[in-house]
Amino acid sequence: MGRGFFVSLEGIDGAGKTTHMGSLRALLQGEGLEVVAVREPGGTRVSERIREVLLDSRNQGMSARAEAFLYAAARAQLVDEVIAPALARGCAVTADRYLDSTLAYQGYGRGLDLVFLTQLNRLAAQNTLPDLTIVLDVPAEVALARRAEASLDRLEQEGVVFLERVRQGYLELSRQNPQRMVVVDAARCVEEVGREIAAIVRARLQVRGHGTH
Amino acid sequence: MGRGFFVSLEGIDGAGKTTHMGSLRALLQGEGLEVVAVREPGGTRVSERIREVLLDSRNQGMSARAEAFLYAAARAQLVDEVIAPALARGCAVTADRYLDSTLAYQGYGRGLDLVFLTQLNRLAAQNTLPDLTIVLDVPAEVALARRAEASLDRLEQEGVVFLERVRQGYLELSRQNPQRMVVVDAARCVEEVGREIAAIVRARLQVRGHGTH
Repeated sequence: MGRGFFVSLEGIDGAGKTTHMGSLRALLQGEGLEVVAVREPGGTRVSERIREVLLDSRNQGMSARAEAFLYAAARAQLVDEVIAPALARGCAVTADRYLDSTLAYQGYGRGLDLVFLTQLNRLAAQNTLPDLTIVLDVPAEVALARRAEASLDRLEQEGVVFLERVRQGYLELSRQNPQRMVVVDAARCVEEVGREIAAIVRARLQVRGHGTH
Repeated sequence: MGRGFFVSLEGIDGAGKTTHMGSLRALLQGEGLEVVAVREPGGTRVSERIREVLLDSRNQGMSARAEAFLYAAARAQLVDEVIAPALARGCAVTADRYLDSTLAYQGYGRGLDLVFLTQLNRLAAQNTLPDLTIVLDVPAEVALARRAEASLDRLEQEGVVFLERVRQGYLELSRQNPQRMVVVDAARCVEEVGREIAAIVRARLQVRGHGTH
């Protein structure tokens, strides 16, 4: 089979990533693929240690650039220890967030230099790019309402502005990478969204010669 | 005065960096400059935490790339928190190892991809490059003999081969960056080496309009 199949799922919190990660796994297994699921920034011993530093040092003078390098370190470890070997064995790899989260959150959301982040991403991923990235797109207010199921206070109102910037970042990245990234309207019911994801994944697998005959 | 003066001291262990860091500081203070001395990879709260991860996780599956990113994270923090602000205040900054150590040790010494390391260095340093880098050059055997003052066993013999590769890396980097890097023959006695360093530093300061009149 040669090289495996690498799918990342992106979107703001509340877009439904966790739900659809589960059905994506079942779908790929149904196509006869062994599935390795990863989630950033943890997942390896080394990256868990890095995660501790990120959590511990937040708000204590860590520079935004140092933080970005730490995320890149955790990602490089995940690529070298888990993702690249799994793809070499011909597995399917599903990632709950990957490169695009860095650009959407740190770049579009928090205003860090996009050129810097893009170069850093490229160094961390090397040649291990997703074959397919599905962006679950919902308006920030819908995502927040799903999470809170309550009226928005002032802090959450600021959250709407931030998350909407992140969302628009994802949409911009999707326009820049039309081959790799597909936007799915995730404001619809779970079943509809799931059916669309399944159709997209099956079509990609067939082009690559995996999957149902 | 505008921007300060940034000097890094490089070379294999045993070349005499520690000795000459002290006299460099005295020299710069004698020229009326406030001196901030830094040493990688520690020096800030965040970079000490990163250093713990580097030490703790060594030999436990950390990938060479993840390690390089962690060094870069510590360096970015040092630049953003200490070096860049000190230079902006017009201070002299002395660094015991900086960018070139990464290339000499990880690149030339251990064989990591030099293009990858160069790009990573550039991202970590941003525009904060040394005005002057002094390479203390000694043959690996001289450096090891200074440290051990004993006959070399088998392990140290392997050390000679590795350190000689690192040394040759420094010499190659110096050829590539003749404006910034100066090689000093550090196999001579401390006083002679110190006089040459002082002459080089004074000449650079005068060109920049600092220092003695």
